[in-house]
Amino acid sequence: MSGRGGGTLGALGEDQMVARFRRLVGRLPDSVLLGPGDDAAALRSQPGRLLLLTCDMMVEDIHFRRAWALPEQIGWKAMAQNMSDIAAMGGQPGAAVCSLAAPGDLEAEVTDRIAQGLFRAASEYGAFLVGGDLVGSRGAIVVDVALTGWVEEELMLRRRGARPGEAILVTGALGASAAGLAALQQGLSDGSPELERALEAHHQPRPRLAEARAIALARRATAMMDLSDGLADDLPRLCLESGVGARVFSERIPVDPACLALSARVRRDALQMAISGGEDYELLFTCPQAAVGEVAAAVAAKTGTPVTRIGEIVAGTGVSFVRPDGRALEPESRFSHFTP
Amino acid sequence: MSGRGGGTLGALGEDQMVARFRRLVGRLPDSVLLGPGDDAAALRSQPGRLLLLTCDMMVEDIHFRRAWALPEQIGWKAMAQNMSDIAAMGGQPGAAVCSLAAPGDLEAEVTDRIAQGLFRAASEYGAFLVGGDLVGSRGAIVVDVALTGWVEEELMLRRRGARPGEAILVTGALGASAAGLAALQQGLSDGSPELERALEAHHQPRPRLAEARAIALARRATAMMDLSDGLADDLPRLCLESGVGARVFSERIPVDPACLALSARVRRDALQMAISGGEDYELLFTCPQAAVGEVAAAVAAKTGTPVTRIGEIVAGTGVSFVRPDGRALEPESRFSHFTP
Repeated sequence: MSGRGGGTLGALGEDQMVARFRRLVGRLPDSVLLGPGDDAAALRSQPGRLLLLTCDMMVEDIHFRRAWALPEQIGWKAMAQNMSDIAAMGGQPGAAVCSLAAPGDLEAEVTDRIAQGLFRAASEYGAFLVGGDLVGSRGAIVVDVALTGWVEEELMLRRRGARPGEAILVTGALGASAAGLAALQQGLSDGSPELERALEAHHQPRPRLAEARAIALARRATAMMDLSDGLADDLPRLCLESGVGARVFSERIPVDPACLALSARVRRDALQMAISGGEDYELLFTCPQAAVGEVAAAVAAKTGTPVTRIGEIVAGTGVSFVRPDGRALEPESRFSHFTP
Repeated sequence: MSGRGGGTLGALGEDQMVARFRRLVGRLPDSVLLGPGDDAAALRSQPGRLLLLTCDMMVEDIHFRRAWALPEQIGWKAMAQNMSDIAAMGGQPGAAVCSLAAPGDLEAEVTDRIAQGLFRAASEYGAFLVGGDLVGSRGAIVVDVALTGWVEEELMLRRRGARPGEAILVTGALGASAAGLAALQQGLSDGSPELERALEAHHQPRPRLAEARAIALARRATAMMDLSDGLADDLPRLCLESGVGARVFSERIPVDPACLALSARVRRDALQMAISGGEDYELLFTCPQAAVGEVAAAVAAKTGTPVTRIGEIVAGTGVSFVRPDGRALEPESRFSHFTP
């Protein structure tokens, strides 16, 4: 897999495709502190202050189904996942633009409601929509948001920076979004509080902007990213950028209570949903072991959100998930953008 | 047509949809000098300097066909039309992000080549790609570029600002892109220089960044936009924002020689292609009559590109195209994103 050719997108997968694009980028201006490959790009603008830039696209029947999500939820999620990328840098969100493709026979009320979801998510977290593009499509709705943000250069956290021996931490709990998706796939609709909680986690994720800011301001974290594709896919990316490996202790992973409660009903292992499910939009970060208490206290004080130490960075490469008995836990099939 | 409901996107059309979204936006922060509705949004960043932000989406079989365009050309055009929006503000382009949706069975070479087109267009005009998102789709390729730029606050040109009595001008010549599209639709392939020129205009438009900069620096223009949907659609938008009307003299419209040469072969009226065709990405701007010579000379000196006075701003509303004999010229069917 080098240079031209090499197969289909489905065969190569997202990480290999991203690596291909990074080789094509060439030399960037000195103003670009951080180009492709992290949660957001970072550009020098004012002294000491970086402009952040990120984008995330959602395609109907790949990332959402209109039978499952309200238009407002589609808009909310499109904005929220971008804000999560800004959070992952330790930054604060700003102006956004949104491109929306939709078929001509779609009722305008649907796109109005998608827009309302975008506006609501943005205004709840300090972002704001300043423009966009509305175009036709032959069928699928496509929503793409590009979001700017800013962060003090000395506070920015990137994927690179984790060192062997450091602690690996996550905010909040994992698996609720995957449990919500599994429930939708299986047509579960029992009106239970745990189902409602899982569906809300899936449709209306809450970007961890305040938590990320508390982590950055504590100045002890060494690397950070958001969990969009799941721990099993995302932690290897942080490790690759940092040139390290990782060991995660499966019993320490904070599994969301809604995920635990729904596990039997959706016939999926709760721990697997927490590891491989994706779309939790929690923060994954590292810091020296001695700083764990201080960082966790800072986040709890500002937001009430728990922070959990789930493992440790090790020298070398590779990420392993270890059971209490010492055996390896293999993550289930991972989310892929290109395989049906 | 107010509030909710009101029909399909196809029935409402792009301008009415944009008006709907603008009503939904609500209050924007004071840092937003210019929100939705112009070629790009403008945000106060450093003193006297504005950050510009725009996006443009291209959908397969709506905006391009893979049978007609090389992947490099698809990428080039996606970047070029965004740079044209930055040009339309009098600005200079900077960092871009690109979201790309493609089916899993697509050869990675195709997306590589789209990316190369993006990179080439960007680097030719001083923009640079700093990140993106690559996602799956059920079939169509979708390319969405969001581009930042900057402009001195005192130099920025927007759609609002034209005053009755002022001259209406365009850079370059119109209709070549429409002639290229008509040739593609009709399977014309005679290898003639005029066909090659029209196809290049259609596939690889050249954003008028240097021309726009010369116009802005001359400090006499009062309003500006780029011609993406064609004079017949775009001039009314400039007039609406400025609260004025316009009268265009059809014999003064600079019709591209390739458009004239191909007119008979594609069985389309050359003047109509120049007025209604779209995708020329020339600049449309206004200035006092007394300043026309000065502005045209400034543009010619910096770029060699001709500037043509095509009409005048009038009080009231409405845009009319007038023939030499005084009769009205009705623009042909206009480009719509939502009607097939």
